[in-house]
Amino acid sequence: MKTIAFDVMGSDLGVKPAIGAAIKILTEKKDLKIILVGNQDEIQNELDCNGKAKKVADRYEIFPTTETIKMTDGILEIRRKKNSSMVKALEIVRDDKANGMVTGGSTASFIAGSHFILKEFEGVSRPGFMPTIPTVIKDKIVLLLDVGANIENDPNDLLNFAIMATAYSKSTQGISNPLVGLLNIGEEKSKGKDLQIQTYKLLEESPKINFYGNIEPREIISGDVDIIVTDGFTGNIALKSIEGMGKKLLSEIKKSVTKGFFRKLAALSLKPAFKEVAAKFDYKNHAGAILLGVQKIAFKSHGSSDLRSFHATLRMTYDAISNEIDKKLEILLKESEGV
Amino acid sequence: MKTIAFDVMGSDLGVKPAIGAAIKILTEKKDLKIILVGNQDEIQNELDCNGKAKKVADRYEIFPTTETIKMTDGILEIRRKKNSSMVKALEIVRDDKANGMVTGGSTASFIAGSHFILKEFEGVSRPGFMPTIPTVIKDKIVLLLDVGANIENDPNDLLNFAIMATAYSKSTQGISNPLVGLLNIGEEKSKGKDLQIQTYKLLEESPKINFYGNIEPREIISGDVDIIVTDGFTGNIALKSIEGMGKKLLSEIKKSVTKGFFRKLAALSLKPAFKEVAAKFDYKNHAGAILLGVQKIAFKSHGSSDLRSFHATLRMTYDAISNEIDKKLEILLKESEGV
Repeated sequence: MKTIAFDVMGSDLGVKPAIGAAIKILTEKKDLKIILVGNQDEIQNELDCNGKAKKVADRYEIFPTTETIKMTDGILEIRRKKNSSMVKALEIVRDDKANGMVTGGSTASFIAGSHFILKEFEGVSRPGFMPTIPTVIKDKIVLLLDVGANIENDPNDLLNFAIMATAYSKSTQGISNPLVGLLNIGEEKSKGKDLQIQTYKLLEESPKINFYGNIEPREIISGDVDIIVTDGFTGNIALKSIEGMGKKLLSEIKKSVTKGFFRKLAALSLKPAFKEVAAKFDYKNHAGAILLGVQKIAFKSHGSSDLRSFHATLRMTYDAISNEIDKKLEILLKESEGV
Repeated sequence: MKTIAFDVMGSDLGVKPAIGAAIKILTEKKDLKIILVGNQDEIQNELDCNGKAKKVADRYEIFPTTETIKMTDGILEIRRKKNSSMVKALEIVRDDKANGMVTGGSTASFIAGSHFILKEFEGVSRPGFMPTIPTVIKDKIVLLLDVGANIENDPNDLLNFAIMATAYSKSTQGISNPLVGLLNIGEEKSKGKDLQIQTYKLLEESPKINFYGNIEPREIISGDVDIIVTDGFTGNIALKSIEGMGKKLLSEIKKSVTKGFFRKLAALSLKPAFKEVAAKFDYKNHAGAILLGVQKIAFKSHGSSDLRSFHATLRMTYDAISNEIDKKLEILLKESEGV
């Protein structure tokens, strides 16, 4: 049995989509248990309204908490609100009462809480958020990090990201020698800010990773590499640019192909074709990011997560637990003599 | 008669697409003259091969040069290669023998050359590349700068960008009070690096611009604002992320809707619908960026420009000349008591 501690409070859309997603994944995965951490009345109320909850009632429990970390809360609140759902979810994982945790709450609080409660692997000074990004190659995803756990990073952080993501890729994707790219504004090694120029040298020299070179933002979804490292600010800009363009372009096409009767008719028969592409590049299906670098499995879902986003994040967490990512990472990082 | 000095050397695909684009726009715009700056033989050869060149032969001339700035050339070469096509094209504009110039050559050399030869407006320390980006709102574009003229910028540079782009928007687009957004990883004013936090304060306090607040990369093409300012590195990352996603997503959809006979049939009748969206978001149609901040009209086209990209850049340059952007900018910047 796998257990997820799920902080159902603190995200933009409230408890409802979180509970809906929990019941959905419990229905799908028979070897999964979820600890719903949050306000008992709100959770119970949602469970009572959910027709499918009864069928999986033996595999969820409520862990009642009295405080909530707000979206605007930061580092201080994680220390002050000791009975908040986020702190408790982190503690449940720390104490091995769950195999992983998920939250949709404040990023700043989550980063701080993970640091204080879960701790980093030895040698890792800064963990990074790592979502999986779909590429144009069938069934191939690319791991991009950091996308916002940090605002500033140094070259050593980026080398750490590369080493950790390499271990992750090996253990979850079975890629024997994953290719690592450095996100940059040009291909040449002289391109970019001092961070990129110094990082290029470190990555090039490191025997612990398989370095591809610089990769331009145009090629993020090309599938040329398995891992792309960058600082948290740049990664966040790139990720959100791609997400926004994907979403808006698909909606523009939808508008255009349904303009007028004849187009609508033709579009109808192409619906499966559009759905294929839309589903692949719908970032709601990739809404979660693991916080890579902490000793336990901890996932952040978009602050504005709806049922589908939370469900996708819970599924990713389930997969990470099934793969025992935390234990494999620990072993692989030790084998490569730390990060 | 409007005149463009066109550096036809130094871009990735050689002289051919440049000459093709020049003849195409000369055919379209009867009040345009182009000075083709570059290797005489190569240019003449392309002109001889172009069936339409004869018809517009009275409106182009060759300005022969003997040196070429290579794509890998930087700041030093612009001072050394005094008889290069890029230097000569800049000098022709400086000496008012043309109203504007276009190059597809080395960005670093172009920035340095513009600084030495064209000079900046008073008070402008760093010009910025400003492309026009299509938005989901019909006929609305957004001005994004800087997208790569600089690697690092300070808050004052970004305020300068905002003021110059405001003047540009007023004089070319007739928008009376253009809205300026600051590209950032969140909406709150506390978000981002020190650059974004300090710039937010400057923009908020400036009476010279109409500040909207932070704008996230997801909303670049929403059309919520008229101008988006950012540093050159971040702007380049965002622009290329959007471009890459747009191109790849359209190609994925094309692949998906032409899979199998029936889909192909339906897709055929939707071709105009796809073309509408593809044309709008095809960045080849927006391949040029004005170097905003120098005293003359100077455009950079992608280094990998093909005929369509060069043609789009020449058209943008023609529009800028028609609008007398350089003179209007000078006046508006003086009126607002400098930048």
